[in-house]
Amino acid sequence: MTFSVTILGSSSALPTSTRFPSAHVLNAHERLFLIDCAEGTQMQLRQMRIKMSKISNIFISHRHGDHTLGLVGLISTLNLIGRKSDLHIYAPAELEENLTCNLTFFIEDLTFKVIFHAIEPNKHQVIYDDGKITVESLPLRHRVPTSGFLFREKRNLPNIRKELIEKYSLTLAEISAIKHGNDFNNSDGLVVPNCEFTYYASEPRSYAYCSDTLYSERLVGLLKDVDLLYHEATFANEDLKLAKLTGHSTAGQAATIAKKSGAKRLIIGHFSSRYKSVEPLLNEAKLIFEDTIAVEDGQIFDVPVKRNG
Amino acid sequence: MTFSVTILGSSSALPTSTRFPSAHVLNAHERLFLIDCAEGTQMQLRQMRIKMSKISNIFISHRHGDHTLGLVGLISTLNLIGRKSDLHIYAPAELEENLTCNLTFFIEDLTFKVIFHAIEPNKHQVIYDDGKITVESLPLRHRVPTSGFLFREKRNLPNIRKELIEKYSLTLAEISAIKHGNDFNNSDGLVVPNCEFTYYASEPRSYAYCSDTLYSERLVGLLKDVDLLYHEATFANEDLKLAKLTGHSTAGQAATIAKKSGAKRLIIGHFSSRYKSVEPLLNEAKLIFEDTIAVEDGQIFDVPVKRNG
Repeated sequence: MTFSVTILGSSSALPTSTRFPSAHVLNAHERLFLIDCAEGTQMQLRQMRIKMSKISNIFISHRHGDHTLGLVGLISTLNLIGRKSDLHIYAPAELEENLTCNLTFFIEDLTFKVIFHAIEPNKHQVIYDDGKITVESLPLRHRVPTSGFLFREKRNLPNIRKELIEKYSLTLAEISAIKHGNDFNNSDGLVVPNCEFTYYASEPRSYAYCSDTLYSERLVGLLKDVDLLYHEATFANEDLKLAKLTGHSTAGQAATIAKKSGAKRLIIGHFSSRYKSVEPLLNEAKLIFEDTIAVEDGQIFDVPVKRNG
Repeated sequence: MTFSVTILGSSSALPTSTRFPSAHVLNAHERLFLIDCAEGTQMQLRQMRIKMSKISNIFISHRHGDHTLGLVGLISTLNLIGRKSDLHIYAPAELEENLTCNLTFFIEDLTFKVIFHAIEPNKHQVIYDDGKITVESLPLRHRVPTSGFLFREKRNLPNIRKELIEKYSLTLAEISAIKHGNDFNNSDGLVVPNCEFTYYASEPRSYAYCSDTLYSERLVGLLKDVDLLYHEATFANEDLKLAKLTGHSTAGQAATIAKKSGAKRLIIGHFSSRYKSVEPLLNEAKLIFEDTIAVEDGQIFDVPVKRNG
């Protein structure tokens, strides 16, 4: 089962000749989740041969143009290629009026519904659940209401040890009951606790997107043990003042969040165009959290299945 | 003196993996004129190392997103890089309200003025004149009010034949009078007609942008002898019905306009993404007008100085 993130854009507000502004795609079990949608997102999707018709859910962190200006173009293109199914957009409420106004102005005869889900950026809550994947909002601290997103696989029902199925001659009904957490009672009054029967073949995987934000300790608990963490690192440590002034983080701060939350891997991006090379930012992060990567447009990060035993 | 056009985008409404939607830059005497501004225009400007701060005048053909959705991002970027001087936008009136609304929504503290000049797309008139270059609006026939643009160098004052300056011992005042069209009268009552003194070292160059449009005979007279003509060719000849239905031209129709107007060179673009290769469209155009090029993103077309004699 695929669980991988593609970086469509990794610049901050000013795109460069090699970096488009913010957009990621999470492929979770062949469902595509688009996270932020800056100008040029549809071109990057084409470039990377990602089938945009498979995107049904778009998560927008905040209203700023370098995270949203690709929405109208993408929706217009989906319309032209004949989409019929609903498109869901999860974003802070204040984006809705502007988006609706632009869709009306720029698109003739929209052939599908765009359903806007207003999220509350100051709350940590589950905002999406399709039975396989959940998405939690992550309160971020920026100049405008901003939310990060934590994507998690849901646990399937556990497996049951084959040898015990034979030993106790379990019926299908009994297997189902045990999978749903019940102990086993046989006709002789024997009780075998649930935990002896069940095991999980793999652990749910997770990916968190935190952009744009000041350093926020509140994230540490919410991101506990996340497998792949994207945390913005707009500035180098020496530009901490500028980071504070503009509502952004330094590379060192991103790494500190990764370390404190027990993240398995950190990817940093949203780099200011002032840095000719992002290597110094990467080095600053690595001093605190070794398993850090400075992302580039077009990179793909797989989160492998975590098998037990 | 430079007079060259750079193609930033050459797709029609659907961008492809190799073509961005419509935007051209005319460099006329190191003044940059942006013509249409689709999504991704600012990235293409970066990619092609064109200094966007040198753009002061933007000409927008019509309201459709594949010609306008890059405006807010570009203006936002100009703001972030510290622009102070006015930015002029020439476009059909109906775009103004939407643009103003988006600039207010997306840009904090705009540091320069965006001055909107409403053009009348059904009229042929001079809409810009800076003393060196004029721009004329070209009425086009599309689904919404649409204007093409004809850029022309202005004629400088003529040169005066050196040998005659010596022969008649002309003063500076007399030279100036002749340059401004007067005949020469010397103290003996001799009259030498102006045409004997003056000549033009070069002819004014011109570039016309015609997109989006149905075939329109009205253009033939307006484009007379244009040096470089860009005419949209969204469809192949066999898709003429579709062209008519959607307000576009075929490659053959673009070539017919070029031939009838006496254009020196034709470049075609705005190709529908339905064509895997645009070679058939190019061939169709060449059958009618040999000097045709099917444009690609990133191409630059120089119009050389036309020296007399």
